[in-house]
Amino acid sequence: MNKTDLDLNKQALELHEKNQGKIEVVSKVKIDSREVLSRVYTPGVADVCRQIEKHPDTARDYTMKGRTVAIITDGSAVLGLGNIGPLAALPVMEGKAAIFKEFAGVDAFPICLNTQDEDEIIKAVKQIAPVFGGINLEDIAAPRCFNVEEKLRAELDIPVLHDDQWGAATVTLAALINSLKLADLDKNVKVVLNGVGAAGVATGRLLLQHGIKNIVFCDSRGIITRNRTDLTSQKRELVDGSVADPNAGALVDAIVGADVFIGLSKPNLLTADMVKTMNKKPIIFALANPDPEIRPDVAKSAGAFIVATGRSDFPNQINNALVFPGLFKGMLDARLEQFDNKLFEYVAEDLASHVTNLSQENILPDIFDSSVVTVVSESVRLHN
Amino acid sequence: MNKTDLDLNKQALELHEKNQGKIEVVSKVKIDSREVLSRVYTPGVADVCRQIEKHPDTARDYTMKGRTVAIITDGSAVLGLGNIGPLAALPVMEGKAAIFKEFAGVDAFPICLNTQDEDEIIKAVKQIAPVFGGINLEDIAAPRCFNVEEKLRAELDIPVLHDDQWGAATVTLAALINSLKLADLDKNVKVVLNGVGAAGVATGRLLLQHGIKNIVFCDSRGIITRNRTDLTSQKRELVDGSVADPNAGALVDAIVGADVFIGLSKPNLLTADMVKTMNKKPIIFALANPDPEIRPDVAKSAGAFIVATGRSDFPNQINNALVFPGLFKGMLDARLEQFDNKLFEYVAEDLASHVTNLSQENILPDIFDSSVVTVVSESVRLHN
Repeated sequence: MNKTDLDLNKQALELHEKNQGKIEVVSKVKIDSREVLSRVYTPGVADVCRQIEKHPDTARDYTMKGRTVAIITDGSAVLGLGNIGPLAALPVMEGKAAIFKEFAGVDAFPICLNTQDEDEIIKAVKQIAPVFGGINLEDIAAPRCFNVEEKLRAELDIPVLHDDQWGAATVTLAALINSLKLADLDKNVKVVLNGVGAAGVATGRLLLQHGIKNIVFCDSRGIITRNRTDLTSQKRELVDGSVADPNAGALVDAIVGADVFIGLSKPNLLTADMVKTMNKKPIIFALANPDPEIRPDVAKSAGAFIVATGRSDFPNQINNALVFPGLFKGMLDARLEQFDNKLFEYVAEDLASHVTNLSQENILPDIFDSSVVTVVSESVRLHN
Repeated sequence: MNKTDLDLNKQALELHEKNQGKIEVVSKVKIDSREVLSRVYTPGVADVCRQIEKHPDTARDYTMKGRTVAIITDGSAVLGLGNIGPLAALPVMEGKAAIFKEFAGVDAFPICLNTQDEDEIIKAVKQIAPVFGGINLEDIAAPRCFNVEEKLRAELDIPVLHDDQWGAATVTLAALINSLKLADLDKNVKVVLNGVGAAGVATGRLLLQHGIKNIVFCDSRGIITRNRTDLTSQKRELVDGSVADPNAGALVDAIVGADVFIGLSKPNLLTADMVKTMNKKPIIFALANPDPEIRPDVAKSAGAFIVATGRSDFPNQINNALVFPGLFKGMLDARLEQFDNKLFEYVAEDLASHVTNLSQENILPDIFDSSVVTVVSESVRLHN
């Protein structure tokens, strides 16, 4: 670990210890007299309860429900750390809650579940749902995450989003839309998508939905061909949806002639030599965290036209924080019942259009651009 | 409903609508640069996660766990409203969370469970426990509440308290200690405890534990005699623990010659005529909410020496808010694993001692006395 990383670790630990975490629950009302107390709590609160009992929809007017999201994890796939469990996952969930509030004014609260059983996760989320206006699933391992999201969407009347899937996919599509524009390419590009976990599956689905149909998918066993017999239903759906019909091989074979590489896999899997076999204007999204599939300087030297990573210390950071705060803000404000995957395509388009000084080093909005959350939440409102 | 009540209802609804509830989740850190973001979230947060994975106890140093309480309800016994369900219960839980923060600086978050099954409640609480340093059970109907609390105490390593039981019991015992002092009576007084739900059972247990052994318990069927065959295990335990051995009868029979009436039951069950049959200095705690078992003016006219109610608009309010914020603050600060019922007796004694200008109209500290939370949390620390 280099000195910069060690310094960052120290600063992060200090920040967490000083604040004993990162979020707090505060009263919106100063309780300094019996009069206020009798409105906030008994006896005045009783009539508020009665109203909600009679008209359940008014819970969104009279309580936090209308502005509060649960961040749910089972701690099974946390950042690049893997299955570290629910307690050790809490700092990530608190951080996410802090971002929700700071970026979009959305109240969010971490729920770290002490179970990694699919049915138990679904049941627990349904049981705690009354307090919340939305469910952000986070860092739940594939393929469990797919069923959890699908079943909860079907059974709950509040929006459910696995951000590792759709947040990542939406920002990636936005970045790709702008990259294709800069490279003067259209939807017929050849894409290699390496890594078909939660983010990879959703990104594949969203690209196919958007009309980018020539995608070669690779997993840890190499190219996913149509006649492989070891495929999950998600991988099967992706290869069936693609017009590519590749022969068996490895990433090194898939990459030849490709216009776009999207890595949602592991560090250092893409070499300079592989980049050199790509088409004329290689677009490379090396999104493994914290270390990308190829370093941007190496990719550039090998001829890459555009490079994006998940890191904040390189240009073109593909960061979910560009979308999840605005996605939920839009859903909550418009009181929408459920996400539809079509929406993420529109949001990606609107996010891409929001970049004014588009360049190879600037394919996405800045995450500290406060108008981004408005763009995304407006996009949600308009496309529902 | 009179004009004052209508005005209060209107003010309460307005307050809830204006604020869209009462609590919010805020970031303790202003996230306004990439540097801060990289400490709060990825990549800096990863090392915090690793520390907690390696040393789970440090979660209390690095996360909200060490200062956060879950307020859990199934919505089955909310205030005087009954079984209104988890959604309609939310305003009460939000109010409680607001009080936690305003009175004790404790972060608390409502979890309103969409189940009223005992085993499912227990399971859900265990599953969400990682985020929390304490569990406040609230407004769960008897007898379910007894098993839920007992089993969770046995199975969790964070303190679990059903406040409707022990908050009520502790404040009632504190009020009784001071009332007996004023009336120059000792622990051999004859007590009638009417209403043996959650609060009644805990109050009975705590009084017996404190050495007040001559208690006649009454429920909706009248005096609980030792040979009644319809008793729950809790009622059986109470009559077996009491030295009183009453004959069958109604409240009107039980009350004759009693020194103390404690009502945790229904409005207007105690009449002036019944008060007149009590011993020389009747001590009357009429704690039914929102309307007491007897109005204070009626009780006083009939000869009551001391009258306390649950209401803030009469003197001597017996209000759980005197204890639950400090109880949890004390447990969290001292990182204690579980409540022991012996503790509530000490807290009641310390709370009683904290009243300086003791009088028949002033048997308890003011809930807006900011030193109360310190008294209670210190009591927790000293007696563990």
